[in-house]
Amino acid sequence: MIRLAIIGYGKIARDQHYPALTNHGGYELKGVVTTAGSGPDGVPVFRTTEDLLQALKGEIDAVTISTPPEPRYNIARQCLAAGLDMLLEKPPASTLGQIQELAVDCEKAGRVLFTTWHSQYAAAVEQARDVLAGARIASMRICWHEDVNKYHPGQDWVWGPAGFGVFDPGINALSIAVKIVPGKLILDEAVLRVPANRQQPIIARLKLSSPVADGPIEATFDWCPTTEDEWTITVQPVGGPEVVLRHGGSEIEIGGQAHAPTGLGEYPGIYAAFAKLVQGRRSHVDYEPLRLVADAFMTADREPAPAFEWRISNPPRNGEGNHAKHGGGVGSA
Amino acid sequence: MIRLAIIGYGKIARDQHYPALTNHGGYELKGVVTTAGSGPDGVPVFRTTEDLLQALKGEIDAVTISTPPEPRYNIARQCLAAGLDMLLEKPPASTLGQIQELAVDCEKAGRVLFTTWHSQYAAAVEQARDVLAGARIASMRICWHEDVNKYHPGQDWVWGPAGFGVFDPGINALSIAVKIVPGKLILDEAVLRVPANRQQPIIARLKLSSPVADGPIEATFDWCPTTEDEWTITVQPVGGPEVVLRHGGSEIEIGGQAHAPTGLGEYPGIYAAFAKLVQGRRSHVDYEPLRLVADAFMTADREPAPAFEWRISNPPRNGEGNHAKHGGGVGSA
Repeated sequence: MIRLAIIGYGKIARDQHYPALTNHGGYELKGVVTTAGSGPDGVPVFRTTEDLLQALKGEIDAVTISTPPEPRYNIARQCLAAGLDMLLEKPPASTLGQIQELAVDCEKAGRVLFTTWHSQYAAAVEQARDVLAGARIASMRICWHEDVNKYHPGQDWVWGPAGFGVFDPGINALSIAVKIVPGKLILDEAVLRVPANRQQPIIARLKLSSPVADGPIEATFDWCPTTEDEWTITVQPVGGPEVVLRHGGSEIEIGGQAHAPTGLGEYPGIYAAFAKLVQGRRSHVDYEPLRLVADAFMTADREPAPAFEWRISNPPRNGEGNHAKHGGGVGSA
Repeated sequence: MIRLAIIGYGKIARDQHYPALTNHGGYELKGVVTTAGSGPDGVPVFRTTEDLLQALKGEIDAVTISTPPEPRYNIARQCLAAGLDMLLEKPPASTLGQIQELAVDCEKAGRVLFTTWHSQYAAAVEQARDVLAGARIASMRICWHEDVNKYHPGQDWVWGPAGFGVFDPGINALSIAVKIVPGKLILDEAVLRVPANRQQPIIARLKLSSPVADGPIEATFDWCPTTEDEWTITVQPVGGPEVVLRHGGSEIEIGGQAHAPTGLGEYPGIYAAFAKLVQGRRSHVDYEPLRLVADAFMTADREPAPAFEWRISNPPRNGEGNHAKHGGGVGSA
């Protein structure tokens, strides 16, 4: 039994982490940290990481850190100092340097570090990887389009420094690509469309290459309003059937034929993997998706896009009604 | 004797690479590639890398690649396919992915790869590193200020995608910092001031940290007009004398006392190091300076700065006189 605490008990922790670790059966949730709100029934709630580490000293083996990305590194350092194994939500930190340093220090201290990318555990991703193992890529196309108003309603931080903009969902696509392409991905070109009143891109168009690819690898990440989300990766291997991952990797078609997904799914897959890592005292550190994002930001061609204002279809939580302005994207919400 | 060719025989090759390798005595220059202009007396000149590789097949062991950064990766791949050892000017490529891939492929092929950072070989940098070895850092300050009009007159590419802006000189400072600080450098915060009519920063202010630093590590890179260049790194170790590197690492003061620099200097140092690497069949790959730049671009707070126009004090080469507009910076040229 792994005695676990969750630091950052927000939406993703409630919706995904808690059910997954509960259903796994190998975890005992000993406490959560949240600055506001409550925890699961019967689980102690703490307001700060310090409070939790102090109160549960000797009573926990590991933590899940599912706060927003920015404070994650410093929290991870506190947990490392407290001798805990760690599961980090994606992206594992704000910078490559932080992840690299954390990996070295966990190794030195004999702690398990697991940098999760939840999309890599979507139910059909493993199948795509198996089909493409050893193949050359003739062409590949990533289309990731979701409405930022729907998934980050009113969250201005996504447009600010280290907010990543449309790379927030886009990095999920890259994490799948990194897993299924049987060779390194290289960023060749990035065009970022940045709203006039924001710092981060609302659309990103990437061209990538790989030593195992003969043809183009292209990706479009789009946060503009749309009536239908799309999270599709299409891969044409040389001399093999086309592989299409849909709905973020939860569905797969091979040569036009739908196949039943065989994986556990995102968070159940993550907690199964973490249990094995902890048992085997092995870390799993992967920063390739963030490396691609860093290379994109460093070399990007930034184009101006129309100003972005939130268009929120549900009333904000404070009950003051819908004050969202309109404009800033294509399509309709 | 290492039989060498230089691909990209521009200003830096003429001014630095050619004298350094000639004075070393262990190199024989068999050819140069330049799209325009001539080579050194008696050295064959080629217009393309293909031409050179074909004409000198079996007659060269290694190449220096000193083109602008953007085409460097593809040229390096051609040279690797031709079985050559490689010395790369800084930055070794446009992206982290390219360098990582090149390193893996050179390793597989048994080729020597040397990613040079010329400032790391400035005459006093080794001394600073020796003084700081094993120390903790109480505080550190990097000030890099040079007039872009002086060092990149009219070169619009420095402001475009993958042009790096003021990180073009700033990465030299970071390459020294990476070498003298006895622990990893982490990028905590970056503020980039970007001229309204350009894509790249004219000023960058960074806050860094390190597991070996107790206090702040701050860097300012500034490309605005100035009457006096400054390239200074000041390090206060805990319980030790202050170390000041001046003029880009070519001069050193320890505890207020100037010490004679003991190194060979930038390019002589690079060619001495490369000869040893080739002899020992060992690569030296360092992408930490570029990793810090990537982390800065990815997480930066971008602020608007006044529009930048070139203010060129020398007549342009075409002899049409000085049409440079004024404005865009502080200070005077």
